[in-house]
Amino acid sequence: MTSPAAPQQPSDERPRRVLIVTAHPEPRSLTAALADFAVERLRSAGHQVRVSDLYAMKWQAALGTDDFPEHPADARLEVLAAQGEATRAGRLAAELAAEQEKLRWADAVVFQFPLWWFSVPAILKGWIDRVLTFEFAHGPAVPPPYSEGALGGKRGLLAVSAGARESAFSDRGVHGPLADLLFPLQHGVFWFTGMAALEPFAAYGAAGLPEEGFEAVAEAYGRRLDGLFTEPPVPFRRLDGGDYGRDMRLREELERPGASGLELHTR
Amino acid sequence: MTSPAAPQQPSDERPRRVLIVTAHPEPRSLTAALADFAVERLRSAGHQVRVSDLYAMKWQAALGTDDFPEHPADARLEVLAAQGEATRAGRLAAELAAEQEKLRWADAVVFQFPLWWFSVPAILKGWIDRVLTFEFAHGPAVPPPYSEGALGGKRGLLAVSAGARESAFSDRGVHGPLADLLFPLQHGVFWFTGMAALEPFAAYGAAGLPEEGFEAVAEAYGRRLDGLFTEPPVPFRRLDGGDYGRDMRLREELERPGASGLELHTR
Repeated sequence: MTSPAAPQQPSDERPRRVLIVTAHPEPRSLTAALADFAVERLRSAGHQVRVSDLYAMKWQAALGTDDFPEHPADARLEVLAAQGEATRAGRLAAELAAEQEKLRWADAVVFQFPLWWFSVPAILKGWIDRVLTFEFAHGPAVPPPYSEGALGGKRGLLAVSAGARESAFSDRGVHGPLADLLFPLQHGVFWFTGMAALEPFAAYGAAGLPEEGFEAVAEAYGRRLDGLFTEPPVPFRRLDGGDYGRDMRLREELERPGASGLELHTR
Repeated sequence: MTSPAAPQQPSDERPRRVLIVTAHPEPRSLTAALADFAVERLRSAGHQVRVSDLYAMKWQAALGTDDFPEHPADARLEVLAAQGEATRAGRLAAELAAEQEKLRWADAVVFQFPLWWFSVPAILKGWIDRVLTFEFAHGPAVPPPYSEGALGGKRGLLAVSAGARESAFSDRGVHGPLADLLFPLQHGVFWFTGMAALEPFAAYGAAGLPEEGFEAVAEAYGRRLDGLFTEPPVPFRRLDGGDYGRDMRLREELERPGASGLELHTR
């Protein structure tokens, strides 16, 4: 029997599979350097890594009828219905099916991107819009809490670089707390599709980041990558645990005194 | 002298200029119908209206070297520097210059879009990423509070349609309050560029919106459009009024008891 004082083993250190989706037009950018660093770090730890470098792939950002090669030219495009039908029938455009196969393969997904206008670059938004189709990532065939869907249980990490200083994204920072700015991704994409969102990793002051600055950022990023499968995720509430009512609102008695806005959705 | 009891005239009812940027792949979508409705409503009120229909324009979403035709092929692309140089020199790609001209012309900007993954469709994010260049919309030549920039003082309205019910976007709604989800656009895009953000207009339950439902949505939207130049904007705090310190954080003494997170940034 293990003594309570014995060092705790991280819950899971076996080799796993990681998909890195990275989005920057410049191969010599900080974003590209951090993506390369992540690939090496994760492979050194024994993990398998695949990379979707969206600019290198010339990824089409705009969702449209191209996504559904068998969509009749004169038929009205209803996005969710078209996604659902093509997903069920295995008739999505080949590049979407290829990305979905990478997602099924992966145990964790890392989005590596510069914070442009307080969100992901358009090319990465287009990957989200087009790849996370209805009835693949969410939807009635995969009912809430979606954790039974294709992405359920996988881990999700946002790794962002931002030009501004950390204080601007702090509790009283002018741009809002980073966790709140990224809520549409952390909760709207990761949590919504049944994934476990980790705290975002952020490199601040990226515009002027000097060579020696990179070492410090990489060291901090490396520690986060080392914990990719062991770190506790953000404790968002559960859709299947009765935290929310049938009106999709948090039950009133679960409101914590003093908490408001987006904070309510963590335990 | 006017009696204090006399009815107040709206502050400004003279004809103005409105740019509507709309983003949906289907010309028979609710988004397209609402954009058409807005054009008619605003023209009936005597305003001039121009429309950037991004799918019809086959708008390129991904920011890249295409934006800067004179960028040397072998030079490293640093996005802000490249935007700033091309903006100052008048050497942006023609489609970017054309959109900037529309923005300079406009007194108000309406973004008409479906809420995809709790944000704008990729094609509209790509319009924001590419058109709102450094030293046009923000940046050292246009220092904070940016209200002296090209966009300063213009009004901004987000007009969204969402598949889910309104309760899911309410105070305790599972997706977060709509104002918080849209903060990266309301505060990150409109406020940051010196624009006056109005409360967003939202059509909920859009997926199943029946024909008779459209009338009610259009009526509510029409009332908002009628107030486009008279409605008080969201009272975000001022960057030039001393509300924020040099560290870009809200001064501690301005924290309202009970307010937290993104709420802090309104008066």
